[in-house]
Amino acid sequence: MEAIQHKGLPLKASCGGKGTCGDCVVLIKEGAYAKKSSAVLPDRLVNQGYALACQTLITDDLIVQLPQFEELLIKSVVRSEFVEKNKKDISGTYAHDPALKSIALNLPQPTLEDNYSDFKRVERQLVQHTGSKDFSLPYSVLKNLAHTVRQEQGQIHVTYFDDPSQASIVNITPASATERVFGLACDIGTTTVALYLVDMANGDIIETASSLNQQIKCGEDIISRINYSQKPGHLKELQDLIMITINRLIETVTQRAGTSSQDIYCASISGNTTMIHLLLTLEPNYIREEPYVPTFNRVPLLQAKDIGLRMNPEARIYCAPSVGSYVGGDITAGMLCTPMLKEADKTSLFIDAGTNGEIVAGNRDWLMTCACSAGPAFEGGGIRCGMPASSGAIEQISLSESGKLNYKVINGIKPKGLCGSGLVDLMAELFTHGNIDRHGKFNAPKTRDRIYHSQNGLAFLVEEAQNTFWGKDIVITEKDISNLILTKGAVFSACSLLLKSVGLDFHEIEALYIAGGFGRFLDVDNAIRIGLLPDLDRDKFHYVGNSSLAGAYLILRSEQNKSLTEEIAEKMTYIELNTEPRYMNEFTGSLFLPHTDMDLFPSVQKLFDSHTKESI
Amino acid sequence: MEAIQHKGLPLKASCGGKGTCGDCVVLIKEGAYAKKSSAVLPDRLVNQGYALACQTLITDDLIVQLPQFEELLIKSVVRSEFVEKNKKDISGTYAHDPALKSIALNLPQPTLEDNYSDFKRVERQLVQHTGSKDFSLPYSVLKNLAHTVRQEQGQIHVTYFDDPSQASIVNITPASATERVFGLACDIGTTTVALYLVDMANGDIIETASSLNQQIKCGEDIISRINYSQKPGHLKELQDLIMITINRLIETVTQRAGTSSQDIYCASISGNTTMIHLLLTLEPNYIREEPYVPTFNRVPLLQAKDIGLRMNPEARIYCAPSVGSYVGGDITAGMLCTPMLKEADKTSLFIDAGTNGEIVAGNRDWLMTCACSAGPAFEGGGIRCGMPASSGAIEQISLSESGKLNYKVINGIKPKGLCGSGLVDLMAELFTHGNIDRHGKFNAPKTRDRIYHSQNGLAFLVEEAQNTFWGKDIVITEKDISNLILTKGAVFSACSLLLKSVGLDFHEIEALYIAGGFGRFLDVDNAIRIGLLPDLDRDKFHYVGNSSLAGAYLILRSEQNKSLTEEIAEKMTYIELNTEPRYMNEFTGSLFLPHTDMDLFPSVQKLFDSHTKESI
Repeated sequence: MEAIQHKGLPLKASCGGKGTCGDCVVLIKEGAYAKKSSAVLPDRLVNQGYALACQTLITDDLIVQLPQFEELLIKSVVRSEFVEKNKKDISGTYAHDPALKSIALNLPQPTLEDNYSDFKRVERQLVQHTGSKDFSLPYSVLKNLAHTVRQEQGQIHVTYFDDPSQASIVNITPASATERVFGLACDIGTTTVALYLVDMANGDIIETASSLNQQIKCGEDIISRINYSQKPGHLKELQDLIMITINRLIETVTQRAGTSSQDIYCASISGNTTMIHLLLTLEPNYIREEPYVPTFNRVPLLQAKDIGLRMNPEARIYCAPSVGSYVGGDITAGMLCTPMLKEADKTSLFIDAGTNGEIVAGNRDWLMTCACSAGPAFEGGGIRCGMPASSGAIEQISLSESGKLNYKVINGIKPKGLCGSGLVDLMAELFTHGNIDRHGKFNAPKTRDRIYHSQNGLAFLVEEAQNTFWGKDIVITEKDISNLILTKGAVFSACSLLLKSVGLDFHEIEALYIAGGFGRFLDVDNAIRIGLLPDLDRDKFHYVGNSSLAGAYLILRSEQNKSLTEEIAEKMTYIELNTEPRYMNEFTGSLFLPHTDMDLFPSVQKLFDSHTKESI
Repeated sequence: MEAIQHKGLPLKASCGGKGTCGDCVVLIKEGAYAKKSSAVLPDRLVNQGYALACQTLITDDLIVQLPQFEELLIKSVVRSEFVEKNKKDISGTYAHDPALKSIALNLPQPTLEDNYSDFKRVERQLVQHTGSKDFSLPYSVLKNLAHTVRQEQGQIHVTYFDDPSQASIVNITPASATERVFGLACDIGTTTVALYLVDMANGDIIETASSLNQQIKCGEDIISRINYSQKPGHLKELQDLIMITINRLIETVTQRAGTSSQDIYCASISGNTTMIHLLLTLEPNYIREEPYVPTFNRVPLLQAKDIGLRMNPEARIYCAPSVGSYVGGDITAGMLCTPMLKEADKTSLFIDAGTNGEIVAGNRDWLMTCACSAGPAFEGGGIRCGMPASSGAIEQISLSESGKLNYKVINGIKPKGLCGSGLVDLMAELFTHGNIDRHGKFNAPKTRDRIYHSQNGLAFLVEEAQNTFWGKDIVITEKDISNLILTKGAVFSACSLLLKSVGLDFHEIEALYIAGGFGRFLDVDNAIRIGLLPDLDRDKFHYVGNSSLAGAYLILRSEQNKSLTEEIAEKMTYIELNTEPRYMNEFTGSLFLPHTDMDLFPSVQKLFDSHTKESI
């Protein structure tokens, strides 16, 4: 524990290192160590190499895997099934037509009659074999050109960006040195970072990976990160942490793909405005202070060497444009993933419920947007047994009348915790069956056999220790429920206010696209029942998953999507909730299950009426 | 001497540190030292702080000025009088219309109603105040933008390149931080480096400076530098040396101008192909080896930070394009300084007699060029008492029938040595008066009272020790004369062959433009008399001076000149003398005074005839 903390790596320890909470479990992959006995960790896990960091004495060099660096999300959560199923209907194009191109050339040997310069000889062939006429060259490539073109008797491989005004060479290698060129799509979330390694020849996603944003130890949400950044050296620290996060993920995907990070020539990055400011070490303070002015909306094209990304130093880094301080490139890129912009006479709502919640309403002709501070509850953050949608997460759950819980675990192993979709299900079931009341408080008589006083307050037992992966009870506490209500309330009230501000009613919305880190599925009925989503026809709802990442990927596939994203950013009208007096009223009304105004949720009312009848 | 050599700085010491040659004289500007007695240095100089490095013991921290870092050329030599007098007639435009622009802006304070991003706010004002619509921004400027725009309540200063496709911001500072923006024109010669500091607002030359190319200790000409570069680490060493040279000159001019090198935003560099390869650490070996292929002709636009030039890191570095391995940007830039390209039905000859000699023949419709290895004799290199055209150089000299020498010294002080124009005069006078014969050998009886055997062989006394600045005889040796004959022979034979190859005769040339490091003047009669220049009507000759530097300066003034230089490079047809069998014949014929074929020099023949008559 001391060694890990000394390195500045994030590791929870609720009990303060007494060996009782079990938070600090790590996997020791190599090396000898002495362990104190601990009742918290089952023998089965100890035998597999798991240990509590706070109860482990180092007696050798160790290779230790922290839970944060374990694979965070399963592949089917990182990839958006919605986008893959609706390729033709989404607003962005799915055509693969990137600016990055790659070509093998065979330069004829120079003679006294044909002794043009090395660069001219390359350029001449490029003009012959491509549509472009004028090629620029970075200094790093020029520097080795004389050797490169002679190493394999003129057999070379040229990688370039085929821009309309001028083609820009990004690398020239001897032909045998390079086989494939790769791109990176990356979503930098406040809580989670996820990326794709993409083969730029055909657009195939070769590998995916995700992990926690290592900045999380400096604050769970945007505002606390900005606060943290204000002390000397802290802004650079935050940049270092996001670089560590992304560079480790790049290492992971390139190792798995058996390739080199030097062969990655472009990255498309989406993230909220604050995350991109921190990525670029830009002062984020004015995002937080009225009148909320970010440094940029449209980020200039950068190079990997500018910020230290582990890829080819000349690689191009594109960040999706922001609309304002609280609606960022994650949303503008995400908009590519829905049919919203294709629809002229149909108004849709787009809801991205991440650590920050962002809402967009509109159609092909107009777009309105706003943001709210939701918190990371649906991504498993701030919830006692919350976790991301990875192996061992309870992703679906139901409660029978008899009080028996049925659940489904990702990968079918013993459960480790609950991911977003599981939490929505659990809340809805507890509420429907009267185990919690409209304030989110436990109905003790109804649930007495499953409720107990834990060190985290009143807790509802989901699964007992002996049946769980970590050998610890999986519970949901009253505090967890309160957090989840705050989160769903923030999102719902923002939706409601946004529509009111354009004079629309929820019923005039003809499609709702839900994005966020819930997991593979989101049970819409349950989400409505807890008041997260409005009570509309169920077939209007579409779960998009991580639209920010899918959008970044679409941008990587085609320059056309890049232009469209810029257009979207220009087009969106941003409403500032921070200075909107009606927002607090809306929010307060949402802090009940499903809402203070039950008329807004007729289907939930109906369910309760039928329950009441049954009990009569 | 040891300390200087340890630092790798160049300092001659012909006598091997015995204190007898006086080559290693330095100026000690600060600090205490002990000196051994030396007869070589006059007391007057010792009292001024001059010392022989090899006879000086260090007893304190010293600040020492090496002769190589002394002001090399006087201002009127660095600037081209020809270009300044013929602004309207030269091929390049003298209009000041650079891409680099600078503007003061006053950003209105952001409000909740107008809370666009910092960059957008800057861009909005830029669009209002300039003709451009789209602005790019480097990462280094973006990084501090939030602070920059707030430091002086929105009063800022923006420096940008106004390119046709997109305007590129290069710096944004608080308004009070920057007053002026500067540019640099720089000529990198094999022997001499010279530059201008230019006020980019109006194109005025604020300061000039020049020094020896510090690479000189690694070889005096191009081929020996390339040979030197082939050992491990030597290419980088050569780059370091040219960087030291240029960066010291930049320091000199910025200190004198009372400005910061950070305010220099663009540089226009001209140099021969090898010099530019060494500047950029590009492998120069293939320039030397058949089929003589350089890495580039057209150099991509670089940034100061790429190569480590002491200016704003984002500053643009433009290098004038080459034609081939032996005709470089010094020539293409130099062509801007003559009317050659304006003349349609008049064929001109352009001769640049530097360390390498380059010749161009042609007019508006066609241009032919070739190069020869001339050696640095006319720049004072390889000549016992040769020196650049700086304070103390004998720049004009004449010999009376009685054998009395009359000379003119730059700045009117005691003479230090002979610059190019003085050497041409001296050779011509010695030859005309029969002190040397057609082979360049001394006619002993004729000159007996001025000829003696020195440690450098037979020497002709120009001025005796007691009347010279350094208190040492100023002489010209038979070896010096032989070197000068090789140099003039190389230049003349190249001119002759170039014209023959296009079927022209010298008499068909209607104007000759002479460039090179001779000094302020070049006596055309004398240059013809020694066979350096062809025997044509005197009013056809124009002495341009350092046309490479003047051309680099014209490029700095206007993008139009940049395009024209690129056009010139494309247009020129290069003839390779290295593989031309007739060249050796031509060259051998030129190794006499003035030439083996006296019919080529009728005016010289006439002079001799009249002399002969007189003596009869």
